[in-house]
Amino acid sequence: MTKIITISREFGSGGREIGRRLAEKLGIPFYDKDLIRMAADDIDIEEHIFEMYDDAFLEKEEMQYTPFSPVYEVPMSDQIFMAQSRVIRRLAEHGPCVIVGRCADMVLKDEQCLNLFFYASFKKRVQRILTRENLPESEFKQMEKKVREIDRKRRDYYQYYTGNEWGKPQNYHLCLDSHKAGQDACIDAAVAYMAYLD
Amino acid sequence: MTKIITISREFGSGGREIGRRLAEKLGIPFYDKDLIRMAADDIDIEEHIFEMYDDAFLEKEEMQYTPFSPVYEVPMSDQIFMAQSRVIRRLAEHGPCVIVGRCADMVLKDEQCLNLFFYASFKKRVQRILTRENLPESEFKQMEKKVREIDRKRRDYYQYYTGNEWGKPQNYHLCLDSHKAGQDACIDAAVAYMAYLD
Repeated sequence: MTKIITISREFGSGGREIGRRLAEKLGIPFYDKDLIRMAADDIDIEEHIFEMYDDAFLEKEEMQYTPFSPVYEVPMSDQIFMAQSRVIRRLAEHGPCVIVGRCADMVLKDEQCLNLFFYASFKKRVQRILTRENLPESEFKQMEKKVREIDRKRRDYYQYYTGNEWGKPQNYHLCLDSHKAGQDACIDAAVAYMAYLD
Repeated sequence: MTKIITISREFGSGGREIGRRLAEKLGIPFYDKDLIRMAADDIDIEEHIFEMYDDAFLEKEEMQYTPFSPVYEVPMSDQIFMAQSRVIRRLAEHGPCVIVGRCADMVLKDEQCLNLFFYASFKKRVQRILTRENLPESEFKQMEKKVREIDRKRRDYYQYYTGNEWGKPQNYHLCLDSHKAGQDACIDAAVAYMAYLD
């Protein structure tokens, strides 16, 4: 039976791409950046502000500056997280789908989901991003720094909003090395495992 | 292509049982306690001393007392680990098999293996051991203590002999929750993933 599938992933592991392909294979919707826009509509926040706080922003800038909303004095980043969580719950009500990032595993912890975590060796991930962005080998050191930084931010984000440890196997049904056997191996393993979930 | 499969597992997760069934499904040998005896033959240590230091011993007693061999002044526990490692390498030369425990993933790190880690929620593992050993619910608290202790010893053993963190996803190809979807799900997922390994 097809489930709601949540995906957490190390930066550069290809987890997002695997999620997209998994959704395609199962014929179910895939939610990632679109989720941000839906959440923006949901709480009537100016879209450009909203997008400043999405994952892309977290990947570029520090998370330190969290302006307070004049209404409840709840930090904007927290309001956005809560709005995204509402959207995620609404999507889950509509049936099977794949949701990448945004602590969806914890937001939907009371639902019947398949929670996946993707990782790969550090060097392979750095190499993958360099190839994807068409950058020369001379950028390797620089990219190592970026990958470390984004992983750290994802870890902090997950820890902050869930109180749990990002990438700890016990938080997921399956954790998969996405490089050693490739994306198809991960997709087939996830589908095989999912077939037995109630 | 069938590989050498190494299995690490939390106590009570059923990883050993899954390993046995996986070997049966693939028609390849399964090595666990037999390995101990083969290693004993290999280094000509009295079998009863050898068995004192196997996993069962580690599960019962403290690992503190490590008498020194009169020959090289290498602790007996280290000599046994080295002997087991030699046996594991020899088994690997003979072709595909399933090896449970004994840091086989690290011993064979230069070989083409599939490294699996099995886990399950703490309470489910405690419950599973109670059921397996036919013990009443009143023993739950006592069993919780035992499960924690054995996990700690496996973690220490792995850390001591490999320098790596036990149960850290990046050390394995796949980490699987053995309870949420059941043993068959784990077996099918592992077989599906393995099909793509070179």
